[in-house]
Amino acid sequence: MTARVDPQRLARELDTLATFSDEPAPAVTRIVFTDTDLRARAYLKSLCRDAALSVREDGVGNLYARWTGTDPHAPAVATGSHIDAIPHAGRFDGTVGVLGGLEAIRALREAGFRARRSIDLMLFTSEEPTRFGIGCLGSRLLSGSLDESAGERLTGGDGRSLNDARADAGFGDSLALVPLASDAYCAFVELHIEQGPLLERAGVDIGVVTAIAAPSSQRIIVEGEGGHAGAVLMRDRHDAFLAAAEIALGVESAARASGSDDTVGTVGVCEVFPGAVNSVPSRTTLAVDIRDVDLARRDAVLERVSAACRETASRRGVNVRAETINADPPTRCEPAIIEAIEQACDARGFTHQRMISRAYHDSLFMSRVAPTGMIFIPCRGGLSHRPDEYASPEAITRGASVLADVLARLST
Amino acid sequence: MTARVDPQRLARELDTLATFSDEPAPAVTRIVFTDTDLRARAYLKSLCRDAALSVREDGVGNLYARWTGTDPHAPAVATGSHIDAIPHAGRFDGTVGVLGGLEAIRALREAGFRARRSIDLMLFTSEEPTRFGIGCLGSRLLSGSLDESAGERLTGGDGRSLNDARADAGFGDSLALVPLASDAYCAFVELHIEQGPLLERAGVDIGVVTAIAAPSSQRIIVEGEGGHAGAVLMRDRHDAFLAAAEIALGVESAARASGSDDTVGTVGVCEVFPGAVNSVPSRTTLAVDIRDVDLARRDAVLERVSAACRETASRRGVNVRAETINADPPTRCEPAIIEAIEQACDARGFTHQRMISRAYHDSLFMSRVAPTGMIFIPCRGGLSHRPDEYASPEAITRGASVLADVLARLST
Repeated sequence: MTARVDPQRLARELDTLATFSDEPAPAVTRIVFTDTDLRARAYLKSLCRDAALSVREDGVGNLYARWTGTDPHAPAVATGSHIDAIPHAGRFDGTVGVLGGLEAIRALREAGFRARRSIDLMLFTSEEPTRFGIGCLGSRLLSGSLDESAGERLTGGDGRSLNDARADAGFGDSLALVPLASDAYCAFVELHIEQGPLLERAGVDIGVVTAIAAPSSQRIIVEGEGGHAGAVLMRDRHDAFLAAAEIALGVESAARASGSDDTVGTVGVCEVFPGAVNSVPSRTTLAVDIRDVDLARRDAVLERVSAACRETASRRGVNVRAETINADPPTRCEPAIIEAIEQACDARGFTHQRMISRAYHDSLFMSRVAPTGMIFIPCRGGLSHRPDEYASPEAITRGASVLADVLARLST
Repeated sequence: MTARVDPQRLARELDTLATFSDEPAPAVTRIVFTDTDLRARAYLKSLCRDAALSVREDGVGNLYARWTGTDPHAPAVATGSHIDAIPHAGRFDGTVGVLGGLEAIRALREAGFRARRSIDLMLFTSEEPTRFGIGCLGSRLLSGSLDESAGERLTGGDGRSLNDARADAGFGDSLALVPLASDAYCAFVELHIEQGPLLERAGVDIGVVTAIAAPSSQRIIVEGEGGHAGAVLMRDRHDAFLAAAEIALGVESAARASGSDDTVGTVGVCEVFPGAVNSVPSRTTLAVDIRDVDLARRDAVLERVSAACRETASRRGVNVRAETINADPPTRCEPAIIEAIEQACDARGFTHQRMISRAYHDSLFMSRVAPTGMIFIPCRGGLSHRPDEYASPEAITRGASVLADVLARLST
C-alpha cells in the first residue's frame, strides 16, 4: 500500500482556511473563539464529515475527528495541530498539521488501508497565547497540565473569562471532562513547519524532532514615578519605561550569554502608561518569553533576567515585579516514533535530519499523555508568525506523505 | 483700589471643572473636542456670561471673553491658559490660569476698577498634544506659527482630521480667520502652576518667568524583522523593540550629557508591533520630547539622539527614521511685565524669584503676537500631569491676586 497525498486538494483547503482572517491577505489573524475562529472551525468540521470522520468537541473546544479502526477499543493513534493565529501572522503555522493530518488520513483510506487502531485528527484550542496569555491552552487542559480552575482564573484583554468566552462560543461542557484517560492514545505525531532556517539552509526535506524546548513566559511590571516631561529634572526621575528598556536589553544579553543557539529570549510586548508624548512614564509592562531545550540552562537565563531586574530597580529607584505565566519543562520525543519517521523518509527517498524544536507545540503537552513525535518541513527563510510565512506545496506534500506512512505503521 | 480674590468661589469652580473628566477622580482626562471637553467649555462660558464678559470663539475653538475697557479701540490686555488634560492627569495644569484669570477680572470689577484697555480672558484649544500630536494647537494657529493647511494635515488617532473634529465639535469658521492682528494685544500674562519643584523647595510664593524652554518633539520609527520568538536564533535577529529601547536610553544619555538641569528628554510613548508575547517585534514607534531654554544646547541634544539612532540602526541592521513634529525656538519674557509682576508681589508682601519655564505653554506662542509674561505658583512635590497634582488654595489665591494687580497696571 502506498498512500498518495493529493497536493491540489490540500493546497486548496489551505487557501480556503487562510481566508478566515481578521486581516486582509497575506496577513492572517485568527484569535481563539472570535467569529473568525468559529467559522474556520466550522469549515474544518465540514471537511472532517466529508471524510466520514466522527467529530466530538470537548468543553474548551478541542476537536477529535475519528477514523474508527477494526479494534475500536485499542488505544488510538492521533495527529493534529492548531488553527489559531497571532495578530499579523501567516497561513502555515499549525494549519499544515491540521489539514495535512486530514489529508494523510484520507490518503490512507483512499489507498485501501484498514487501520487496526482508530486514528484521530485533533484540533487543539488556542495554541497561541494571544487571548488568554498562556500558550497551548487546549493541550494543557487535556493533559492535566492545567486544571479546571483556569476557566475562571484566565481572562482575556476584553475582560471575559475563559469560561465566559467558551460559553459564548458554544462550548458548554465542564472543563473537568477535558482531561484524557492515560490509555486513550498509544502515539501522537504532529506535522509542522520548522519555523526556523535550518532545514532550508541544509537543503533537507524532513526534520525529525528529538526534543521540544522548554518555554517560559513572564510578565514584568515596572512602577516608577510619572510627571510632566518638561518639568521633572532628569536627576529627579524614576522613569518606568527607561527601566523597562534596560530590562528588555538585559533579556537579550541573558539569552546570548548562554552560549547556545538553542537559547532564545524575546520581549514581544511593551505597554507604557500613561503613554503621552509629554508625560514621564509611571508604569511599563513587558511580556518576556525565554526558551531552551536544556532546562537548567533556561533557568539560568531566568535567573540572569531576575538579577537585571533587581539591579535596575535599585539603581533607578523603581519597583519591578515579575509574574510567571508559565515555566514548562522540555520534552524528549519517543525513540520508536523518531525511528518510524526516519524509516518512512528513507522508504520515500526523502532526506532527513534530527533536530530540536525551539518553538513549542501542543506536542509538548501531548507527550504527557502519549508517546509523541514531530515531523518538521522547511519554511522559506525560517520565517514564521508573519504574513510572508511560506512552505512550498512540495514540502507540505512530503510532510503529509511521511505522516500518512507513520500513522499507518503506528495504527497497525 | 485693592482687588480681593474670592478663594472659596475659585476653589468651588476648580472643583466643578475637575468633574468634567473621562476618568474617575482624582484623575482627570479631558481630550480636546470630546464630549467631556465640550461640556467643560460650556461650563466656562456660563461663568464668563455670569461675569458679564462678551464671548467669541474662533474656528479652532480658542475662546475670547472680553471685559470691554473705556477705550475699546486700544490694543487690549489678555490672560488665560487651557483646560484640556492628557490621559491620567491632574486638575490644576492650565485650569488655574483660566479660572484664576476669570477670578482676577471679577475681583477687579468688584473693587470698582475701570480699565482703559479691554481685558480678555483666553482659553486656548489643545495645549496638550494628545489628540493631534502637536502641543499648543490653538495658540500656534492664532499666532500664525501654524497655517490653515493644518486643518487637513493633522489627524487624530481615530483617523479624524482637525477639520473633521472641529466641525463635529461645532467650530465651523475658517482657520484662515484664526490669526490675530499684530496690534490686537499690548500684553499677555499667563498664571500657571510651576510643574516643577523649585518654588516649593525654596519656600517662595511666586515664580516670575523670564524665559520659556524650547520644546521639540519627534516620532522615531524603527523597522526591523519579525518572526517566531522560539524559532529565530538570537544572532539572526533584527528586533525593532530592542533597537528602540537602546534609542530611548540614548535620549536619556543625551539629555543628561548637556550638563544643565534645564535640559530634559523624555520618551513617553512606545508602541510595539505586532505586540504578541511569542513574536519578535518587527516595528516600534517612539515619541520623543526634548526641551531646553537654550536653543543651541537643545539642538545639540537632538544631534546626539540622531547619532544614537544611526549607530543603533547600523549595528542592529534595522531601519530608523525620525519625523520632526515640532521644534520651536525658546522665548524671553517681556522685561516690563517681569517688573510689573515683581512690583505686585512686593506690594502684597509675597516672596518671589525669577525662573525659567521648562514646561512649555501657550505663552510661548502668544509672545509672537504680544509682549508676554508668566506667573508661576508652587505645586506639591513639583508634580504635574498626574492625578496627585496639587496646588493649595492659598497659593492659587496669591497667584490670582498678583495677576489681578498686573492686569490692572497693564490696562491703565
